[in-house]
Amino acid sequence: MQKQIVHQVFFWLKNPSSKEDLTQLIEGLKTLSEIETVRAIHIGVPASTEQRPVIDNSYSVSELLFFDDLTGQKTYQDHPIHKKFVEDCAHLWEKVIVYDTITV
Amino acid sequence: MQKQIVHQVFFWLKNPSSKEDLTQLIEGLKTLSEIETVRAIHIGVPASTEQRPVIDNSYSVSELLFFDDLTGQKTYQDHPIHKKFVEDCAHLWEKVIVYDTITV
Repeated sequence: MQKQIVHQVFFWLKNPSSKEDLTQLIEGLKTLSEIETVRAIHIGVPASTEQRPVIDNSYSVSELLFFDDLTGQKTYQDHPIHKKFVEDCAHLWEKVIVYDTITV
Repeated sequence: MQKQIVHQVFFWLKNPSSKEDLTQLIEGLKTLSEIETVRAIHIGVPASTEQRPVIDNSYSVSELLFFDDLTGQKTYQDHPIHKKFVEDCAHLWEKVIVYDTITV
């Protein structure tokens, strides 16, 4: 199986109750799909699965991106579309956690 | 677009330097693909992307599962294969974080 790079990001909004901020962040994230090395994208919000102590549903928005390889991820990271997203939206969040994984 | 449930899990091993424990956990996770409501599965380890303060690469293994809906996720959660995985492998990890998201 081809190994993939999976870029899993979780955002905590400064104003988690602001629908405008949520919409702006989601719209910003959608632009990332235009980056040519992004193979698949999933943008989500916490799902109403059964609550258990191990579940963290305190974040506002999740971003999940697939790349073919590390080079593809680096192209994304340095891409003008990604930089514009950060410039336009970074003021919206107070915390972000990124998990970058590679297929075992 | 069809909304999906994305189940994103990160495991921190009790003995992060044990290759045996890592292998056992990964082999256990692979059995989860047999659950009929699992639409796609990705099992990973931290990727060697550029280090930045927002990146958490302290976990040992990641599990990423896609379901069609909340019912599919619940079927997985209660499934004998999932229960056997937890029974066989829970002693291996000291921490687990789960993020359940739904497509926006």
